[in-house]
Amino acid sequence: MPLGERSGDKSESRYCGVETDFNDDMAHVLHFNLYSGSFDFVVAPLMDPSYRPSLVQNDALGSGLLPFAGSDLVLSPSQWSSHVVGKISSWIDLDSEDETLRVDSETTLRQEIAWASHLSLQACLLPAPKGTSCANYARCVNQILQGSNNMQLWLRLPLVKPDDDSMDAKSVALVDYWETWNSFRLLCEHHSQLSVALDILSTLPSPNSLGRWFGEPLRAAILHTDCFLTNSHGSPCLSKRHQSLITGVFNHSIQIIISGNSVHTKASMDANDNSGTDSQRHPLRPYLDYVGYLYQRMDPLPEQERFELGYRDFLQSPLQPLMDNLEAQTYETFERDAMKYIQYQRAVSKALLDRVPDEEASVKTIVLMVVGAGRGPLVRASLQAAEETGRKLKVYAVEKNPNAVVTLHALVKLEGWEYTVTIVSSDMRHWNAPEKADILVSELLGSFGDNELSPECLDGAQRFLKQDGISIPSSYTSFLQPVTASKLYNDVKAHKDLVHFETAYVVKMHNVARLAPTQPVFTFTHPKHSDTESNQRHKKLNFVIPNDTGSAMVHGFAGYFDATLYKDVHLGIEPSTATPNMFSWFAIFFPLRTPICVDPGSTLEVHFWRCCGSTKVWYEWCVASPSSSPIHNSNGRSYWVGL
Amino acid sequence: MPLGERSGDKSESRYCGVETDFNDDMAHVLHFNLYSGSFDFVVAPLMDPSYRPSLVQNDALGSGLLPFAGSDLVLSPSQWSSHVVGKISSWIDLDSEDETLRVDSETTLRQEIAWASHLSLQACLLPAPKGTSCANYARCVNQILQGSNNMQLWLRLPLVKPDDDSMDAKSVALVDYWETWNSFRLLCEHHSQLSVALDILSTLPSPNSLGRWFGEPLRAAILHTDCFLTNSHGSPCLSKRHQSLITGVFNHSIQIIISGNSVHTKASMDANDNSGTDSQRHPLRPYLDYVGYLYQRMDPLPEQERFELGYRDFLQSPLQPLMDNLEAQTYETFERDAMKYIQYQRAVSKALLDRVPDEEASVKTIVLMVVGAGRGPLVRASLQAAEETGRKLKVYAVEKNPNAVVTLHALVKLEGWEYTVTIVSSDMRHWNAPEKADILVSELLGSFGDNELSPECLDGAQRFLKQDGISIPSSYTSFLQPVTASKLYNDVKAHKDLVHFETAYVVKMHNVARLAPTQPVFTFTHPKHSDTESNQRHKKLNFVIPNDTGSAMVHGFAGYFDATLYKDVHLGIEPSTATPNMFSWFAIFFPLRTPICVDPGSTLEVHFWRCCGSTKVWYEWCVASPSSSPIHNSNGRSYWVGL
Repeated sequence: MPLGERSGDKSESRYCGVETDFNDDMAHVLHFNLYSGSFDFVVAPLMDPSYRPSLVQNDALGSGLLPFAGSDLVLSPSQWSSHVVGKISSWIDLDSEDETLRVDSETTLRQEIAWASHLSLQACLLPAPKGTSCANYARCVNQILQGSNNMQLWLRLPLVKPDDDSMDAKSVALVDYWETWNSFRLLCEHHSQLSVALDILSTLPSPNSLGRWFGEPLRAAILHTDCFLTNSHGSPCLSKRHQSLITGVFNHSIQIIISGNSVHTKASMDANDNSGTDSQRHPLRPYLDYVGYLYQRMDPLPEQERFELGYRDFLQSPLQPLMDNLEAQTYETFERDAMKYIQYQRAVSKALLDRVPDEEASVKTIVLMVVGAGRGPLVRASLQAAEETGRKLKVYAVEKNPNAVVTLHALVKLEGWEYTVTIVSSDMRHWNAPEKADILVSELLGSFGDNELSPECLDGAQRFLKQDGISIPSSYTSFLQPVTASKLYNDVKAHKDLVHFETAYVVKMHNVARLAPTQPVFTFTHPKHSDTESNQRHKKLNFVIPNDTGSAMVHGFAGYFDATLYKDVHLGIEPSTATPNMFSWFAIFFPLRTPICVDPGSTLEVHFWRCCGSTKVWYEWCVASPSSSPIHNSNGRSYWVGL
Repeated sequence: MPLGERSGDKSESRYCGVETDFNDDMAHVLHFNLYSGSFDFVVAPLMDPSYRPSLVQNDALGSGLLPFAGSDLVLSPSQWSSHVVGKISSWIDLDSEDETLRVDSETTLRQEIAWASHLSLQACLLPAPKGTSCANYARCVNQILQGSNNMQLWLRLPLVKPDDDSMDAKSVALVDYWETWNSFRLLCEHHSQLSVALDILSTLPSPNSLGRWFGEPLRAAILHTDCFLTNSHGSPCLSKRHQSLITGVFNHSIQIIISGNSVHTKASMDANDNSGTDSQRHPLRPYLDYVGYLYQRMDPLPEQERFELGYRDFLQSPLQPLMDNLEAQTYETFERDAMKYIQYQRAVSKALLDRVPDEEASVKTIVLMVVGAGRGPLVRASLQAAEETGRKLKVYAVEKNPNAVVTLHALVKLEGWEYTVTIVSSDMRHWNAPEKADILVSELLGSFGDNELSPECLDGAQRFLKQDGISIPSSYTSFLQPVTASKLYNDVKAHKDLVHFETAYVVKMHNVARLAPTQPVFTFTHPKHSDTESNQRHKKLNFVIPNDTGSAMVHGFAGYFDATLYKDVHLGIEPSTATPNMFSWFAIFFPLRTPICVDPGSTLEVHFWRCCGSTKVWYEWCVASPSSSPIHNSNGRSYWVGL
């Protein structure tokens, strides 16, 4: 049964499995673990572990009956597919120097996978590669993956990492299994049905080293009983670090599988006590109960997170607000973002107080123009600021979308703003204003700041801003950081064309590993000091990968913005300074055509350009170190924003 | 005028250019250098080097007249396109920290390229990047390349390389410009119109370091006057190492450009003396004369090389001799390869002498079967061996192609072999032989040995070979080595699909750099000792890149074979042991989907598999280190040989 319920959360991590030994009686295995043990699924060997094809052939070519666990009839089709993950024989070693073992391994792997497909299992667990070389293993798995069925293959890997600065040499593994994984998945071309199951052991690598896995296709965490501690009641519990890892696992929709023998005899005995003389009480039940406790103890998802669950790691094309008119539904969504308008109201209030001293408050009228007024939320915020500060305002609401202008007129009439607000149905770049403004208020920002062409629009509007006038926002800066994002990469790749690899996407990033702190990219300040100042930009960024991360894969870049509305009032989504409770913007994702592997401590040199043509604006980007990528989106051939 | 004529050689390297200073009077420049100097073309600046766009704008927006060298009318269109290479202003620095310089550079580059296009120049020489970073330069060049015209862009780079073991620190550059080139071309995605012009200076890097450039798109070698020595007559000459480099340059169809001032005053004076008082005598003429002397001194191309000129670096699909029947033209070509049949005759002779002692020569008849007899050349070689050794032979000529069988019958009749030779029109894999053979002779080898399925065919034929019978060939081994081959890579890439990147090609390799010695891959021995021995193979190869090569790009692998026909008689194309004067086989080329850059001294781990299915045989391959490539040709999806 599921570990618990969190409202709105349909996560896979509610289900917990158990790893079992080989047993011919699959019906018993299922009954014992699901009904006595309350697990949701079993990870069970499909084939007698003593089987070796080469020995069978020497015996007799006879029956051709393979020693599978049960026949397909011992469970119903839905039991097989919902409750059994096939565990591929762990003795196989496809890169062995011993040719008999290698050939036996290859044969067995293919037979077991074929059997699992026959049973319509959803997933099989592949044993970890035995040595550092895994090319032949990967080749066979790749051949299997190229076949047509939908089964997931989980490559099992120990979650260990050699820490250079560790003092205790014994506790340190010699291999970073992330490297093994990386090699394996590169050989299999990031196949979307190939994913990872991590063995969680009693020692854990550094948080950065753990973190990189959350950008990988991690499907299962195998929690060994010997990484549990014992609490004062003799029951199993986990260290703080393990607890926080498990919480991370839950949050990333990764399923937990309990593995190993019960090493908490007291707990098992207690469990037996509780259920009287039921000798069928499952020995691993106390571990499941503890994991269930951790699940239930988590804070419920905030409402906004629940609302955004469906958008997680889903690629959206950015808006083209200049070329296209927004739909009512889009306005509706953005207008519900209260926090954004609170910040605008604060900024306008401060600007009004600076512009009009108290003694002039009753005589001086400030001309405020909202450019890109939409259906009026910034007009409302500005008027509320005037009321709050006791300043007099004359407002022009300039909007190019004639459909929004209809709503604006209705709003003005409804609110009785006719004598304060003038509605102008025009593109701000072409409007001939009857007077100049003291304050220009706009909200033309995209996820990457300037990507919806706020600079070009405000260049046009600056004509009717007074020499000493104020622009709200007064500046904005875009930010970038490299990320591991295998899900996003695979979704881009699925389109099988260049265009999608050279496009930026709006994404609610979730299963993503952020590999270095963000860095600022392009800044625009308004009003501009010089008419000839170009909106073209070039920025070289050097990201340093922390030493304790280990190697990691860069699938692309996460982009954000931060805007200074006025003085200390800012608005933004850059993670370290993000405005809380704001949902108008997700991050932006710039993919790389070929993911780039970065070594610990190495520097990733990245270039971004903002290019301007007569009809469009676009970005180009590339990696120049540790190795050079192609220039992405040359001449804006794949992705651009129309002027 | 061309440096000389070598019969059959249409190489570009017959033409020699000269680098000139800026001069407004382009007609004079051309006349002086072509007619007084005998050069074939000039590399001339197109724009006044003092021009800076930012200064012009400050002056006046006035005329808009750019300070180009002459107007387009001063030369005829064919003069412009045949005799002028545009030299882009050498002051430009598109990656400068100085924004004015950077923007000026970008503007000037675009203006000059636009002008060169207007003039229909065939090529422009781009100045070397100023620093280690070249991302913005590459981005602008890439934008230009994405445009539609056909102009070549030659990136100028100094031919220097830091040698780690050099004792003289001063003579050593700090940058390996190959790295600069590699970064630039990766950013420009191996664009086929982007190539290299190397500045040849007085010191040269190691032969390995030089060698890697011959796999790159090297179009021009700029030979500076100060790398010339002075001979006893006071005339310019080159060191042995420089001479051998220049010979390499000629052999790879690279054009030479003479650059610099005359530093051999005596030679110039002599030259003046020779031409009397002609003050127009070109000061660089002695250098040109010396280069012409080197050209004319080269050995003429051997006939076979001349014959194969048209095949150089041209991708051919391998034959499918099992599925398809060869055409008469193909038989014709192969039968002209005398050396091959001489080796077969030697092998058969030795086998006959071993099989039949002198005392039995007149009484014992050897049954020899030629499997895959084609139009009969191996039948002839076998009969000649019998005659040579005085042994008695009964020959079966087995051939599956009914068209070739027609020729065979005619041949047997013509030669009067009716009582010796029995023609069998059958596939050797299915023939029911009336008796068993002492000797089985076949020639089923492809460029990569087993790639035309010799193992599978001989498995079928082995049924009718006596227990102690002899197979000629008795074994064969394939060989591989990593290569830089930008031309081949670009030709594969031009198909814009996966299939062509996962196909092996037969190629007469020429503009290729061999990065490490060959290593053996798969060996097959006949007759087989065990029926159950599989023809599947897996080989892991570790190639070590020599330290003095520097970094290099691996575009794929060159493959060869060597066959032991009988005892010490071998036949093959593996470069270090190749049978001389044989032309039946070119090398084979296995491309990589993404070229892999290897560091000096590093190990390139490569895996090759030979896979056998019920209807086809195929190879899969991958690189596993320094980074993993995808598995190429999984399940033979792109390239296979039909059974």
